[in-house]
Amino acid sequence: MKQTSRIEINPERLLKDLKDLAQFGRLTTGVSRVSFSEADVQARHWLKTQMERAGLNAEFDAVGNVHGRTNTDAKSVIIGSHTDSVPVGGWLDGSLGVIYGLEIARSIIELGLANEIGIDVISFMDEEGTYLPCLGSKRFCRELGDDELAKGQSPSGERLPDAVERSGFMGNPEMSIDRARHLAYLEAHIEQGPRLEASRKEIGIVTGIVGIRRFKLEITGEADHAGTVPMSMRKDAGAAAIGLLHSLYKEIAKTKGPESVWNAGSIKFEPGAANVVPAKAEIIFEIRDLEPDILNALETSIHKTVENISPDDNITYLVTKTIDIPPSAMDTGLSDHILRSANAIGVSNMKMPSGAGHDAMVLSRHIQSAMLFIPSINGKSHSESEDTLEEHIITGCRVLAKTVESITSL
Amino acid sequence: MKQTSRIEINPERLLKDLKDLAQFGRLTTGVSRVSFSEADVQARHWLKTQMERAGLNAEFDAVGNVHGRTNTDAKSVIIGSHTDSVPVGGWLDGSLGVIYGLEIARSIIELGLANEIGIDVISFMDEEGTYLPCLGSKRFCRELGDDELAKGQSPSGERLPDAVERSGFMGNPEMSIDRARHLAYLEAHIEQGPRLEASRKEIGIVTGIVGIRRFKLEITGEADHAGTVPMSMRKDAGAAAIGLLHSLYKEIAKTKGPESVWNAGSIKFEPGAANVVPAKAEIIFEIRDLEPDILNALETSIHKTVENISPDDNITYLVTKTIDIPPSAMDTGLSDHILRSANAIGVSNMKMPSGAGHDAMVLSRHIQSAMLFIPSINGKSHSESEDTLEEHIITGCRVLAKTVESITSL
Repeated sequence: MKQTSRIEINPERLLKDLKDLAQFGRLTTGVSRVSFSEADVQARHWLKTQMERAGLNAEFDAVGNVHGRTNTDAKSVIIGSHTDSVPVGGWLDGSLGVIYGLEIARSIIELGLANEIGIDVISFMDEEGTYLPCLGSKRFCRELGDDELAKGQSPSGERLPDAVERSGFMGNPEMSIDRARHLAYLEAHIEQGPRLEASRKEIGIVTGIVGIRRFKLEITGEADHAGTVPMSMRKDAGAAAIGLLHSLYKEIAKTKGPESVWNAGSIKFEPGAANVVPAKAEIIFEIRDLEPDILNALETSIHKTVENISPDDNITYLVTKTIDIPPSAMDTGLSDHILRSANAIGVSNMKMPSGAGHDAMVLSRHIQSAMLFIPSINGKSHSESEDTLEEHIITGCRVLAKTVESITSL
Repeated sequence: MKQTSRIEINPERLLKDLKDLAQFGRLTTGVSRVSFSEADVQARHWLKTQMERAGLNAEFDAVGNVHGRTNTDAKSVIIGSHTDSVPVGGWLDGSLGVIYGLEIARSIIELGLANEIGIDVISFMDEEGTYLPCLGSKRFCRELGDDELAKGQSPSGERLPDAVERSGFMGNPEMSIDRARHLAYLEAHIEQGPRLEASRKEIGIVTGIVGIRRFKLEITGEADHAGTVPMSMRKDAGAAAIGLLHSLYKEIAKTKGPESVWNAGSIKFEPGAANVVPAKAEIIFEIRDLEPDILNALETSIHKTVENISPDDNITYLVTKTIDIPPSAMDTGLSDHILRSANAIGVSNMKMPSGAGHDAMVLSRHIQSAMLFIPSINGKSHSESEDTLEEHIITGCRVLAKTVESITSL
């Protein structure tokens, strides 16, 4: 390392906390800790205790966010992420950013720096959207009213207010972003992709979180007996769908930007029987990019592909946009602090977009926000095989600590 | 008409019987009369009574076939089909061929011709395969032993022997084909396709029942996050499946014979989520033709399409043949009797393959067999919208009666 930080973190303590947290909802190597599950609530109680032991004022808020803050009047950097997981998830997804916050706050308090710089550590509730995606960060940013909150529901049908009540969070004080006190939001996260590993970089500095547009492509023909109706007399929605998607892949590849990604994750034929000509086909097609202009161009290429199909009275095509999440740019000034901090302590890095959503997407609408990625082994996430080398976990925390120092000119 | 028949059928009685039979399991316009259902068993009792009233010796056999024969020593033509239906079926599918047999036998008896020519009228059990496809005809032809019969099971899980017992057929005498007494098998059926209507022909003379080969195409890649993994690093089984099927449609169209049909009736991606790159795709692809050589060529083109895909370490392809039903040629001499009979009474006709399976497929392995089709309105079947013009129903029966006369040189 070229230079050390004043905020010197404790690697052993960091790793121990991450491993202790991974005991809640533990699977073989991953965790199952969906929001408001027993494991999630227990993990949040454990986290509150660790915050208190570190000397933070810790509380649950009214939706189950765990919030620990240094007990001073100094302006504060929020460091957070989430401790809930997908049904079968990895041990670092979300937990990493929360425990980084805990370790950095603890180090600051130990070093007697808490009067100069405050830290708010937060584990947001339900980032993974078991009941309502980014519930905790949206509520913290006052984006989510009681009416909308009441619509949240789990796949098993439990209503969100009932989950809040059952978990003992009902009636807690609301906690909200305070732009008079909060300086910035920093979120560290595993990459959940293979790019850092492939590029042999230790950290990624997130330029922004991609926008997502999702489309339902419906192709309608007519069911027929697949033995008795000659090929020339069929209205085969399945064959039409295959032709459409084949053309769409070609068209999109011509339109794409350097960072664009797309996916046809689902296709279904109805009625779906081997001996029946498909009456209907449905394709779910998704495009992601950081740039609104490129998203627009990609969307246009979907419509253009449909329009370019030779008119055929037998088949109808319907394109419906079902999701349109705008891209979230990260703050360039704040991201530069991460870049300079990484360079200052000799950590290899690259700029990259985030292809997945994070709580920073919400926070960035209210306060300057930045994200730091560490590598995912084989790019895996949302699976038990998610993992990161311990040296990368430690390096990421050091860069984040140095970034806090850089922001606050300690 | 150029010439009348000695066997003069009664059109009103024919239509009344068909309409009476359609009351069993009646839906709005179609029927729901799956084998061994209450409606099916009641319909079979009704049929036995009509046979007895017509002067036939009528019995149920040990699997629920209804068998009525003229009470003479004369050699006999079997006229049959089935009275069971698919869960939501039409009123003529199967019933037509059975009631034609009843009406022709009744006319022969009334005309005092039964000592010259006998008729066996049969409604075979479970042609539609609720428990076991062509159960009744296979048992009648001694193709189905008790062991194989015991494996039959309904979609709701009822075992075939239990259904036989519950329906009161257990312990009845077996009835079997008797090549010393039976001259031929004749089956009339609705076309279940649009060709007769499109060609404006009153009857179709079936050259054979197509062979069916069914294939499962499995394409395996790897699941990835559809946001975080760059396009170049994906192992997208879905995109590979679309490319494969697009090429296969082109290759098959080059290989096809004049009567070939094919169908990709089902395609599925796993895990099938919008934001996950498909790890696996499965396509069900079916080919049908009368000619074994053409079926072989079509099958080869499936394997060739897979082989021609550029080698890609990321994707594996597996082709499995799951069904291989050989084509069944109808007897040309017997079919010529239908042709000459139709021409003799001035009925427009065409030769055509049957794209769907029928009991005649089984019978043709044991006795000279032929089939006659009448038009289906809009080509529809296996649906409540299945129907045929009354004049076509009557014409078909007249041609079949004339055919019986022709075979037996009455």
